[in-house]
Amino acid sequence: MEIMQVKDELTVTRRVDGLKTASLRVLVDGKGGLVVAVDTVGAHPGNWVFTVSGSAARHALDDKAITTDLTIGGIIDHWDDDGDREVRPEEGAGHDQTKAQRSANNRKAA
Amino acid sequence: MEIMQVKDELTVTRRVDGLKTASLRVLVDGKGGLVVAVDTVGAHPGNWVFTVSGSAARHALDDKAITTDLTIGGIIDHWDDDGDREVRPEEGAGHDQTKAQRSANNRKAA
Amino acid sequence: MEIMQVKDELTVTRRVDGLKTASLRVLVDGKGGLVVAVDTVGAHPGNWVFTVSGSAARHALDDKAITTDLTIGGIIDHWDDDGDREVRPEEGAGHDQTKAQRSANNRKAA
Amino acid sequence: MEIMQVKDELTVTRRVDGLKTASLRVLVDGKGGLVVAVDTVGAHPGNWVFTVSGSAARHALDDKAITTDLTIGGIIDHWDDDGDREVRPEEGAGHDQTKAQRSANNRKAA
Amino acid sequence: MEIMQVKDELTVTRRVDGLKTASLRVLVDGKGGLVVAVDTVGAHPGNWVFTVSGSAARHALDDKAITTDLTIGGIIDHWDDDGDREVRPEEGAGHDQTKAQRSANNRKAA
Repeated sequence: MEIMQVKDELTVTRRVDGLKTASLRVLVDGKGGLVVAVDTVGAHPGNWVFTVSGSAARHALDDKAITTDLTIGGIIDHWDDDGDREVRPEEGAGHDQTKAQRSANNRKAA
Repeated sequence: MEIMQVKDELTVTRRVDGLKTASLRVLVDGKGGLVVAVDTVGAHPGNWVFTVSGSAARHALDDKAITTDLTIGGIIDHWDDDGDREVRPEEGAGHDQTKAQRSANNRKAA
Repeated sequence: MEIMQVKDELTVTRRVDGLKTASLRVLVDGKGGLVVAVDTVGAHPGNWVFTVSGSAARHALDDKAITTDLTIGGIIDHWDDDGDREVRPEEGAGHDQTKAQRSANNRKAA
Repeated sequence: MEIMQVKDELTVTRRVDGLKTASLRVLVDGKGGLVVAVDTVGAHPGNWVFTVSGSAARHALDDKAITTDLTIGGIIDHWDDDGDREVRPEEGAGHDQTKAQRSANNRKAA
Repeated sequence: MEIMQVKDELTVTRRVDGLKTASLRVLVDGKGGLVVAVDTVGAHPGNWVFTVSGSAARHALDDKAITTDLTIGGIIDHWDDDGDREVRPEEGAGHDQTKAQRSANNRKAA
């Protein structure tokens, strides 16, 4: 599972039948990219969540017939951008990372 | 699911039987790479769409026997290149990203 | 599905039983990396093909018991290195890409 | 499977039903990124583990109905950051890698 | 499937039951990273192999109940680091690649 932050809702009127009326969210992933996930836990913009991908994304839903490859698995209780959680990205990414990498890691770890 | 833009149709005469006569599109993914997806919603070049990958790509089709690992899941209602949608890539990618990264993110977020 | 170019055949005498006598090809992917795929359409070195990955790679075969995670799905009719197809990689990759990135994209899009 | 190091536990009160009460861990992957995995072997922060992804992540659990795409498969007996294990990342990454890459590889291989 | 080189055996005493007593190898992937795979063909350190990932990794085993997402599919007959095989990485990676990229590609292609 990956850690992402909710950015926005997504409006998609013309969609494949398999998606039914599933609620969609735009998320920011660990590298700053944007992805789309089905939400069943009621996540709001700004929430830090973790996502379940692949076939598990369907297993995560009550209605397993919904077509998805990414579903929000839960809202993380404590996770913020200022690192009050004890995660030290410096350890994770080595000591010679560039400034840009460090910044990206800080974001992810925050 | 990922956000991509339709580029073109793809002509493939010699194909595996499992693909049948599925309509194929060339898409530009979030990093500027080109991928191929099955289209059942009638997406046109220029449309912003989101794609469903893996085994879910087959679930997204009415004929689930079609061989695909990427299917267009829907056409996004509002999504354009000039950022009238409130997506701020700067937040997503950290504050020290290079110019090239920012450009790529702008594209993706636009 | 991804767009790749056939590089060579691959000789693998000692293989898992599940592969049976499937014909293998070395392909160059969109980033210049080398991967191995099962071929059933008779692709030759130099051909541009698109590949089906994951569980769909098995669905693409007549003998679905063959163990593969990548299968050539078809040979692309028109696709060459000089860009006579209307694909403009500049649009795809943003306007500030480095020369190296542009080169890679040209290759992919060509 | 991939080699990762356990960083922390993860508290997620509001979660999809499919996750039940599975114990979650934050791991650092080979590139310094943070991911979330289900733990059934009792891994502690600092442990080097290998992870099983995709549908195999569910097969790895006694209760196969649990929704996960990443599960800790085992704790590696000998694996430390100082390279007393005979792994030479220089070989793996080529001879012209940048300092940042070498650092990242050292971390991974250590 | 991907092309990798066997690095070492891996000792994992505390493992999930689903792995049973499967023999594990540490491999170096195309980017110099280290991954873990189940081996049933008897690969030795230094061997070039190709790997099967995802659900196909289980299909590749005689005992399909073994929990794995990566299995060695076969040992490549001819593949060495000095490029006696006709693989020209320059074509694959474009003409403006950096020295580091070229080095990585040479490794992969060799």
